[in-house]
Amino acid sequence: MLARSARPFAFDLLKTDTRTAARAGVLHTPHGDVPTPVYMPVGTQATVKTLTPDELVAAGASLILANTYHLSLRPGAERIAHFGGLHRFMGWERPILTDSGGFQVFSLGHLRSVTDDGVTFRSHIDGSTHVFTPARVIALQEAIGADIIMPLDECLPYGVDEAGAAVSLERTHRWVERCRAAQTRRDQALFGIVQGGMLARLRRASATWLAGLDLTGYAIGGLSIGESKDEMHALLEEVTALLPARKPRYLMGVGAPEDLFACVARGVDMFDVVLPTRLARNGALITAAGRLNIRNARCADSLDPIEHGCRCYTCARFSLGYLHHLFRAEELLAYRLATLHNVTFMLDLMGRIRASILDGTFEEMRARFLEGYRPTDAAAREEQRSRWLEAQARKASCR
Amino acid sequence: MLARSARPFAFDLLKTDTRTAARAGVLHTPHGDVPTPVYMPVGTQATVKTLTPDELVAAGASLILANTYHLSLRPGAERIAHFGGLHRFMGWERPILTDSGGFQVFSLGHLRSVTDDGVTFRSHIDGSTHVFTPARVIALQEAIGADIIMPLDECLPYGVDEAGAAVSLERTHRWVERCRAAQTRRDQALFGIVQGGMLARLRRASATWLAGLDLTGYAIGGLSIGESKDEMHALLEEVTALLPARKPRYLMGVGAPEDLFACVARGVDMFDVVLPTRLARNGALITAAGRLNIRNARCADSLDPIEHGCRCYTCARFSLGYLHHLFRAEELLAYRLATLHNVTFMLDLMGRIRASILDGTFEEMRARFLEGYRPTDAAAREEQRSRWLEAQARKASCR
Repeated sequence: MLARSARPFAFDLLKTDTRTAARAGVLHTPHGDVPTPVYMPVGTQATVKTLTPDELVAAGASLILANTYHLSLRPGAERIAHFGGLHRFMGWERPILTDSGGFQVFSLGHLRSVTDDGVTFRSHIDGSTHVFTPARVIALQEAIGADIIMPLDECLPYGVDEAGAAVSLERTHRWVERCRAAQTRRDQALFGIVQGGMLARLRRASATWLAGLDLTGYAIGGLSIGESKDEMHALLEEVTALLPARKPRYLMGVGAPEDLFACVARGVDMFDVVLPTRLARNGALITAAGRLNIRNARCADSLDPIEHGCRCYTCARFSLGYLHHLFRAEELLAYRLATLHNVTFMLDLMGRIRASILDGTFEEMRARFLEGYRPTDAAAREEQRSRWLEAQARKASCR
Repeated sequence: MLARSARPFAFDLLKTDTRTAARAGVLHTPHGDVPTPVYMPVGTQATVKTLTPDELVAAGASLILANTYHLSLRPGAERIAHFGGLHRFMGWERPILTDSGGFQVFSLGHLRSVTDDGVTFRSHIDGSTHVFTPARVIALQEAIGADIIMPLDECLPYGVDEAGAAVSLERTHRWVERCRAAQTRRDQALFGIVQGGMLARLRRASATWLAGLDLTGYAIGGLSIGESKDEMHALLEEVTALLPARKPRYLMGVGAPEDLFACVARGVDMFDVVLPTRLARNGALITAAGRLNIRNARCADSLDPIEHGCRCYTCARFSLGYLHHLFRAEELLAYRLATLHNVTFMLDLMGRIRASILDGTFEEMRARFLEGYRPTDAAAREEQRSRWLEAQARKASCR
């Protein structure tokens, strides 16, 4: 229900950990409250793939992400407005955050040109040409109607030099000002996006400058794009040190369980990441011990659930052996059951992280979890990422 | 729950319509009761595609079908036995009927040879060679553990002459005797399958001879394979006139809503058909007015549900416009929501048919439904069927 409050957004910082920079809070929005830190399942095309809104609620999701790039192309932002906005259209009445579309435009490979006015690109669906300006992405997001919206920003690939990163940062800063000026709705919160490539100096400048705009919240963009974890953590620390404590911090596109701990510890409150849902559809199940590949022959005769003690419907009702069979048979039910497990796992994990911050045991909780959890190594991760990017490029070139 | 009854199977014929041959009854099985007439959703590979057992229960399903051919190849009948049988393996604790696999062997195009001993074929999965004898299909079905099982039968294509059909019928009759002799479990009901091609004389002979075996129930196979509706109805009438009234009649592989009425009226109690679930995955939604193609541009801006008054989750929560978007975007949720609607529609329809038989208003109910319902015409049906068969052949030749 839309809260008829004069102040539709507020962030209550309930606790800051004494031994790390971790925080626990509540972000109040017109469509409800979001306990933080929070993991946002990704619902790119107005659906968190395979799941119904009821399942997301049962799994404990309080906030989901949707993509303005995709939705503006199909079904179209005005069409979504015709349906009463994205919440009504997709049947999810809790908070929604929309990405501005900048990342997709820059990363999906159909970028035609970038000027200070905006970006021109070709649709991955039908090749038609479109222009995203700061005003346009705000208009699109106002039609879509998410609670939290993002400005158009320039997303650089890994390895851009300082000069290029500085020019890009200026542009991104001009764009957020134009985005804010373009807003007409009073019930949507525009976050700023800290950029600056891999240069600490630029990151500090961006964080400082954006903090001065007194926006509702602050995202950190352009990380986890190929740099090492150490590099990412160092830049993150530079940024969070300069962002206002009383505003939420949103690290875009991160991360796996080990990344959640590392970044929560560095003061991040909000995360979106496709990994849990994408892994699920590929038969990789997240457990407290690490990833489990359901197609592994070891699973074929196992009567065990994915994880004892997991409260999800999949673990309550089905064996590894049955899931193994569904995946080998390429049955649609497989993708749904796996997704439900992975999303529930991530939401539960974040819930336990939050509880540990509130009761002062975050460091112990983190140590206990990481002791039992075997992360997928960097080489394997990079290999999988390359294969996925290649598959995307092949798909795109087939249209 | 397994009924600890000395007589695990019984068929209560509650009512026979006075104006047609329609009947309403209850088939009692070890895993529960099946109100008849009944539509059985098809769960070929131990899953009714996209749906969980809970959704099937909520939709009102009381009996589902699974395929011995597919399950014997993957995951394997012995493996299913390791999991405690198919009910436990797939989490469906209500009645199950398994087809013997004969139809798939004869229709999936990998048949190597047919002799009086059985059939030799190559797996569509990996090309390995397998033999189905009457004893083998019973052993497989005993390991799988369905409540109702079927004998190995020879399934003829349309157009076989009388001599060929007569030889085949003899073989099918010898096989059902050998199947019955091979049974060791006391909690599974073996049905006979009436064959005889398109020859009324052979059909009558088959029905009469099988009736003499005093089996628990009787299926009618080898119909709806290319003959006209009139031809099918005529043969059906010949057969049901000779089958014992107090045993259930199961018409295999039928049918669309209009076919359900026509065949219930001719004394059929049980139906399995992939059409509702397959149509759903292809965006064709069944409504009281006929089929609705969700991809039609008309649906893109519709705030209406698929059907007002439909009690399924899809109609309760989502608009045609959203479903249209999901299908255009090839989102996995689309297939699930569409399947849930079509299966619920068919189950509700059959429930209303049964109620009308019980209260003596079947003819009126049928007239009312058919007045508003526009069947897909025969030409369109045949076209779709050809396209699907071609797609199957292409897939098979790619392995």
